[in-house]
Amino acid sequence: MNAKSSAPFARVHIVGTGLLGTSAGLALSERGVSVTLADQSPSSLALALDYGAGARRTPGDPDPDLVIVATPPDVVAEVVCGQLEMFPGALVMDVASVKLSIQGAVSAASTHAGRFIPTHPMAGRERGGAVSGRSDLFTARPWVICAEAGQEADAVRALVVSLGAIPVTMTASEHDDAVALISHVPQLVASLTAARLQGASEQALGLAGGGLRDVTRIAQSDPALWIQILAANSEPVVEQLRELRADLDHVIDALAGVESVGSKKVLAETLSAGVSGVSRLPGKHGASTTFASLIVVIDDSPGELARLLTQLGDWGVNLEDLRLEHSPGAQVGFADLTLAKDVVDDVESQLRDAGWRIAGERS
Amino acid sequence: MNAKSSAPFARVHIVGTGLLGTSAGLALSERGVSVTLADQSPSSLALALDYGAGARRTPGDPDPDLVIVATPPDVVAEVVCGQLEMFPGALVMDVASVKLSIQGAVSAASTHAGRFIPTHPMAGRERGGAVSGRSDLFTARPWVICAEAGQEADAVRALVVSLGAIPVTMTASEHDDAVALISHVPQLVASLTAARLQGASEQALGLAGGGLRDVTRIAQSDPALWIQILAANSEPVVEQLRELRADLDHVIDALAGVESVGSKKVLAETLSAGVSGVSRLPGKHGASTTFASLIVVIDDSPGELARLLTQLGDWGVNLEDLRLEHSPGAQVGFADLTLAKDVVDDVESQLRDAGWRIAGERS
Repeated sequence: MNAKSSAPFARVHIVGTGLLGTSAGLALSERGVSVTLADQSPSSLALALDYGAGARRTPGDPDPDLVIVATPPDVVAEVVCGQLEMFPGALVMDVASVKLSIQGAVSAASTHAGRFIPTHPMAGRERGGAVSGRSDLFTARPWVICAEAGQEADAVRALVVSLGAIPVTMTASEHDDAVALISHVPQLVASLTAARLQGASEQALGLAGGGLRDVTRIAQSDPALWIQILAANSEPVVEQLRELRADLDHVIDALAGVESVGSKKVLAETLSAGVSGVSRLPGKHGASTTFASLIVVIDDSPGELARLLTQLGDWGVNLEDLRLEHSPGAQVGFADLTLAKDVVDDVESQLRDAGWRIAGERS
Repeated sequence: MNAKSSAPFARVHIVGTGLLGTSAGLALSERGVSVTLADQSPSSLALALDYGAGARRTPGDPDPDLVIVATPPDVVAEVVCGQLEMFPGALVMDVASVKLSIQGAVSAASTHAGRFIPTHPMAGRERGGAVSGRSDLFTARPWVICAEAGQEADAVRALVVSLGAIPVTMTASEHDDAVALISHVPQLVASLTAARLQGASEQALGLAGGGLRDVTRIAQSDPALWIQILAANSEPVVEQLRELRADLDHVIDALAGVESVGSKKVLAETLSAGVSGVSRLPGKHGASTTFASLIVVIDDSPGELARLLTQLGDWGVNLEDLRLEHSPGAQVGFADLTLAKDVVDDVESQLRDAGWRIAGERS
């Protein structure tokens, strides 16, 4: 496998030239793979061809070794079955963000389901369409492969690695539960919270700080795509939303009778469960260490922030995360630096000595 | 008012030397105001005195012009009443994060409530205690003042301006509704969502991206403080949580019967309401413009990010927001730049020309 790990397939056919299909085409073409493209929409196909993501298939072309199905989720299973039929020697993989329903539909409809490898690149929340395609879209992103060990899965794993992604093996059911938890439920929670802002006064919104912005940021996502995703993964999402609602009911009851015995215990347990849940999110290098945050006052210009980061870089300080915060109406901003807990005090004194103003610290 | 706007009070007494009291003491002392301090805890008081936030009150001291009550929320009303009684010539203001219950308690218990001005500096989520006190804690932060126009309110407004904050006038009830919406409900939503991560597999957590991190970030806040805040503002919070629960119930019903007529309409309306709610959050200079996001691949080092920001600064590009994103296990990160929509395409080509890799774009 190592020998061919830079390009485990010589000929790849991609069906669906949206963001993922076009990006895969660009990346594979750059790596010397012969890529052909297809899309139901002639204009989307033309765009992907123009960008150099691959060539149109012509009648004399040899069959591909691999077909990547990158259509919208609701037609993936049907397209996969068609491709398995059409290319009897090819592996077929999809890249949809739900897996169990597609795997089930393909197994039920095709006698060639053994050549189908369900996958899902966690390539973020980017804007769709060929126009947004990038050959480095998958760089450093986890890419889930729902297949047992075996020759086919190994080849797909090598392909994923050759595109710069990090292969992760799980079952379709594990995948769907995982994305319900880490992506689909948070999306709905953000949308439900942001929806409350529709009726808010300008004055109330003017008080909003970084916390509200964080919680509601992904509520900006495209509703049309999310309807398909949520509909295709409704079971795990509903299950988790019901657990969330039960917890929410407890909080509402506790707050409605806030002077009753036990109500503050419910609040304490809810808030502590949140602290312990968020602490499980891995740090940037996969470690579950704990971090602290240092808030530095900066003039509201990229130059000033660059100066701050240059200084941190010179000192060899490793940033875990960085946020900009602005106060409406002010020309001053805050850089919220997340650092490993054991360096935060040293960094704070170094920054003060260098003349920076520290507006706060959070542990 | 202008003449004395840099220091509208000559003698200020501060009761409670936690983060807010100590910070106010440091800031006022720096501005030449004579500050005295008191705290129930001798060690907390000693620390604030050591930091130079003010002096201990001694028997011969003249009465203050202003008393700032900065105790924990649950004792503010009682302390305010005591100070109104003790200093008949002084204004008394508090800085607690809930207002109506305190205002009501003071009005009911004191005949001097006319000298009480309820206020709330939106000074963020910083760690408490005198040890975290900073004279510039209030710089560029909104500071709510719950008082009609009048001499007393004007003096407090001038004080707030002298500390670098942005005064915002609203009623206690408007304030409490506003903070329930922009702070207390998002806090609970983040905690409830993060609580779900407690039982998640390491593998599922390894797929987490920036979205989940955003939604759950404030779940790290201190439970002890939040129990007090939520308990003191339970009515508006419960009211808004009930509306949120009604929306959540619709989503659960829609997903549980996702193939039924009308269920996708419910999902579409929920997601669209989220898009429209989040679009109402003001941009950094108070404008409700719309932004787009550009995701740039960077080596995982502060130096590389500094180089990127230096370049943006040189081009005069104004960042609305900036996020760092990391993939677990990878040495590559993503800088998620939020820019005004009308410059994003130009910036993208400039960055590409300068050799940066663009991993995506979101509108």
